[in-house]
Amino acid sequence: MPASHFLPHIDQMAGYAPGEQPKDGVFIKLNTNENPYPPSPRVFEAIQNQLDARLRLYPDPMGTEFRNQAGQLFGLSADHFLPGNGSDDVLTILARSFVGPGDTMISATPSYILYKTLSDIQNAHLVHLPFEADWSLDPAKFAAEAARTGAKLAFLANPNSPSGTVLTPAQVADLARRLSCSLVVDEAYADFADAHCVDLVRDHPNVIITRTFSKGYGLAGLRLGYLVARPEVVAGLIKVKDSYNCDRLSLAGGTAALADQAYLAETRAKILATRARLTDSARSMGYQVPDSHANFIWCLGGPPATPTYEALKSQHILVRLMRYPGLEPAMRITVGTDAEIDRLLEVWRGLV
Amino acid sequence: MPASHFLPHIDQMAGYAPGEQPKDGVFIKLNTNENPYPPSPRVFEAIQNQLDARLRLYPDPMGTEFRNQAGQLFGLSADHFLPGNGSDDVLTILARSFVGPGDTMISATPSYILYKTLSDIQNAHLVHLPFEADWSLDPAKFAAEAARTGAKLAFLANPNSPSGTVLTPAQVADLARRLSCSLVVDEAYADFADAHCVDLVRDHPNVIITRTFSKGYGLAGLRLGYLVARPEVVAGLIKVKDSYNCDRLSLAGGTAALADQAYLAETRAKILATRARLTDSARSMGYQVPDSHANFIWCLGGPPATPTYEALKSQHILVRLMRYPGLEPAMRITVGTDAEIDRLLEVWRGLV
Repeated sequence: MPASHFLPHIDQMAGYAPGEQPKDGVFIKLNTNENPYPPSPRVFEAIQNQLDARLRLYPDPMGTEFRNQAGQLFGLSADHFLPGNGSDDVLTILARSFVGPGDTMISATPSYILYKTLSDIQNAHLVHLPFEADWSLDPAKFAAEAARTGAKLAFLANPNSPSGTVLTPAQVADLARRLSCSLVVDEAYADFADAHCVDLVRDHPNVIITRTFSKGYGLAGLRLGYLVARPEVVAGLIKVKDSYNCDRLSLAGGTAALADQAYLAETRAKILATRARLTDSARSMGYQVPDSHANFIWCLGGPPATPTYEALKSQHILVRLMRYPGLEPAMRITVGTDAEIDRLLEVWRGLV
Repeated sequence: MPASHFLPHIDQMAGYAPGEQPKDGVFIKLNTNENPYPPSPRVFEAIQNQLDARLRLYPDPMGTEFRNQAGQLFGLSADHFLPGNGSDDVLTILARSFVGPGDTMISATPSYILYKTLSDIQNAHLVHLPFEADWSLDPAKFAAEAARTGAKLAFLANPNSPSGTVLTPAQVADLARRLSCSLVVDEAYADFADAHCVDLVRDHPNVIITRTFSKGYGLAGLRLGYLVARPEVVAGLIKVKDSYNCDRLSLAGGTAALADQAYLAETRAKILATRARLTDSARSMGYQVPDSHANFIWCLGGPPATPTYEALKSQHILVRLMRYPGLEPAMRITVGTDAEIDRLLEVWRGLV
């Protein structure tokens, strides 16, 4: 074995383990919060319209049409938006722009485990502050911890994963005001919530919102996300992104998806109805399920999670077994179609 | 203006300026080395076959089918390959894995200007070693400079841009043996050369080859590239890449493109014939044109480049005006279709 040329901290880090992606179709897949419904027909049309000789040409490096469409949706100028190769790309760009080796990032916990990976790659430290028992966050406590540790960047998944809980825009604004670093509000699941924080960028120069097409828009396979921030922040981030980080097909598909808000509303309504039924059923089996504002539920307490997860898997139902330091393993279950959830409940009830 | 939260070196860096991408179609576009021919019909078929409800599902994070196809093409096992969101993504992953703040990277010059941007983002130093007058590289001199500066990573564009010149696999192997760091052989243009260095990874643990679909395969709009390295190197790089860095459509399209080597050979032959004609014509106008092994030519000497570039642009012909420190500005001209090159030559001859 020859000597490694990797940076020592890369050699030592573990790497992010994404949820299982079985290659065959025998599983009812409720483990990675994909949308159970296909994307808008307009997305397919828009991609079809790009499938010609223009594929030989580089995409627009700034995704101008996409930014214009996003600007129209939110009532902000296009220069507030930056598309990325999934919101992971956008989160990566943020970590590389704001956090150096030995620096500190802060996040509430339990939350999206990618923040730790991003911190590891930057050779930084991720400080965790636990959510309160009711899944709220004390803004004064969070800001004090950020100040004490000199945090260069704060992450707040809102709605949060795995809890599905949410802070209100007013609470997030309060937190942003108290922080002296930038606050990334990761709104991957905001399409399933009652409110979002995009408007905060108008008055809060340190607020950066990240979004994805993987959840609400049913486009996990296309890899598209974006961020919303003040134009001067976006201008700096552009220097760090790969020049052509989004391809012609995803930009066209994402623009079409944004333009079809009626389709989003329709699939969202179905998912929210199924989510209510799934939540009630899980609670009736003895689980404590926080009110979810996302497309999954988090099942605390109740029968032990690990054997339940295994038993479901043996019946070709895949849910996510989440293990956080200091917490019991627990299941995070994606809201599937009604038929998928019916089958889940049938098997699950037989286990408890 | 509020205080910047960017890392100081990000605030201070200039950022990479990609070649102009005019949004209308009035230009004959010979400035960013796109293939003048569309991709293989099999690519369109493969993407069409993915345009269904599966787009709601995450892609295979490892691109298994793509890696298998690449392995078959080169006679190496699949674990030697890592696909990326364009070769820029792959080059970014390499810089993040091997180069820390204050570290040194080394490259021959003039070459791909992105290496400087990658170095800037890492807060590293890029050391340049000029090519010899005949565009060769003295391996002993290069290795000595790498050792003297403690370089953590060496970049060699081969074929090189803007010169179009190439080192033989034996010369690259000699260089790799002398280096104590990893050597990235950027083969973006290797599809147009007579030889490539992929086989070197068998015996040279420090050789990493990068490839793109943007040039030879006519897929700049799809964003797909890959690297070839020893499996233990690939395993380390996987920790640094975004989990789902390639989408379903690009993986399917790229796999189909690799499978259609006959189409590649056909378009390549046309481009090489046009390249020969373009080279002869430029030389007859008084330019010194190094023998090109890529899909562009580099025009040294001859009439001043800047007014020629401007005059061509005013006639809706876009070439790339390259400015390197210590060198006269010079034009790099992509090999277009025969009709495009006929029109270029008609206008160009009228200027000199």
